[in-house]
Amino acid sequence: MSNDEKSSAMTISRRGLMLVLSSPSGAGKSTISKALLERDAEIIMSVSMTTRPMRPGEVDGKDYVFADQGIFDAMVKANEFLEHATVFENSYGTPKAPVEKTLSEGRDVLFDVDWQGTQELERNARDDLVSIFILPPSVEELERRLHGRAQDSDDVVKKRMAKATSEMSHWNEYDYIIVNENVDESVARVEAILAAERLKRIRQPGMLDFVRGMGVSQ
Amino acid sequence: MSNDEKSSAMTISRRGLMLVLSSPSGAGKSTISKALLERDAEIIMSVSMTTRPMRPGEVDGKDYVFADQGIFDAMVKANEFLEHATVFENSYGTPKAPVEKTLSEGRDVLFDVDWQGTQELERNARDDLVSIFILPPSVEELERRLHGRAQDSDDVVKKRMAKATSEMSHWNEYDYIIVNENVDESVARVEAILAAERLKRIRQPGMLDFVRGMGVSQ
Repeated sequence: MSNDEKSSAMTISRRGLMLVLSSPSGAGKSTISKALLERDAEIIMSVSMTTRPMRPGEVDGKDYVFADQGIFDAMVKANEFLEHATVFENSYGTPKAPVEKTLSEGRDVLFDVDWQGTQELERNARDDLVSIFILPPSVEELERRLHGRAQDSDDVVKKRMAKATSEMSHWNEYDYIIVNENVDESVARVEAILAAERLKRIRQPGMLDFVRGMGVSQ
Repeated sequence: MSNDEKSSAMTISRRGLMLVLSSPSGAGKSTISKALLERDAEIIMSVSMTTRPMRPGEVDGKDYVFADQGIFDAMVKANEFLEHATVFENSYGTPKAPVEKTLSEGRDVLFDVDWQGTQELERNARDDLVSIFILPPSVEELERRLHGRAQDSDDVVKKRMAKATSEMSHWNEYDYIIVNENVDESVARVEAILAAERLKRIRQPGMLDFVRGMGVSQ
């Protein structure tokens, strides 16, 4: 056996996973996502397709893939989205092909979708999906964070709180729950979940060849 | 809301889990288990019950719970074992009650059982079980480790290798697979799996009260 083969344990091929982070506004999800993407080179952010006009400063293919409605509708008909939705006459969706390419290359894709998007991803890709719901440490802290965003009226904050409470009612549809008391700790927790999920047998398709190489018959 | 209630996120009650580490002899499981137990105060080693005579230096209740055959058989009949087996006329088993007590207190239990024991634990406690199979990095390394144990003849080592290969054929019955190239890294991987599994929604029964406390209706 060559040295290359001896070091095969280092290169056992894995299938990537789809990581969903959901939370109510103000729970700290964006901060956690950003830190994760900076620290982990093996996970990339999913890029959605949209039919809404490009805004100044946006980059096609980075912020969104911008497409016209005809193409979008044809892709819906061809079942080429993992999930899609229409908001205020604009369509948004996650095309399957680039996600599948990334997963098959052994890298992971991060999704920032709400509970409805998560449910649709789950229907279309349950085995690849790992879902995490992030909760604020308390109602008071959530209110403080929602206030902190701008000089908003109490009424606006009240509406945001009601929306956040409604979103939080879906916490029990997720695989993992993290209470975000401290950003660094929460990032470490997401990283532990990623590290563990990558070690799952079903995500290590190269393991079969590896054990066969040690004379184990299957 | 009092300060005690505000810090409730720190004390969301969790249900412990049953962690199984299995591997062929020589893959490094004992070293990993020992390090894990030293570093993590929230997990304790399962203590088996046995009918075999106590050996010099063994402590009843620590190494094993020593019991006579009558008691053991009565417990088998009463379905009071999570798994049990008879080896060379001696009976061994894991009593349910102390494991359930530990899990309900929010601590984890570590099991050192083979694939047969794992299958029986899985039948009796699937939701609480997390199973990890540890593989050696290569056949050559496994042989080196099995040789290193003593001045054994080639024939003895050959038999051990055959047994190890047979044990390894059960790798695909486990939730997670770790290739033990480096003990520190493998311990870190087991710790990541533990950290992740503790964050699973189903293992955080206290989360329901926590979200209710934030005004979320379920």
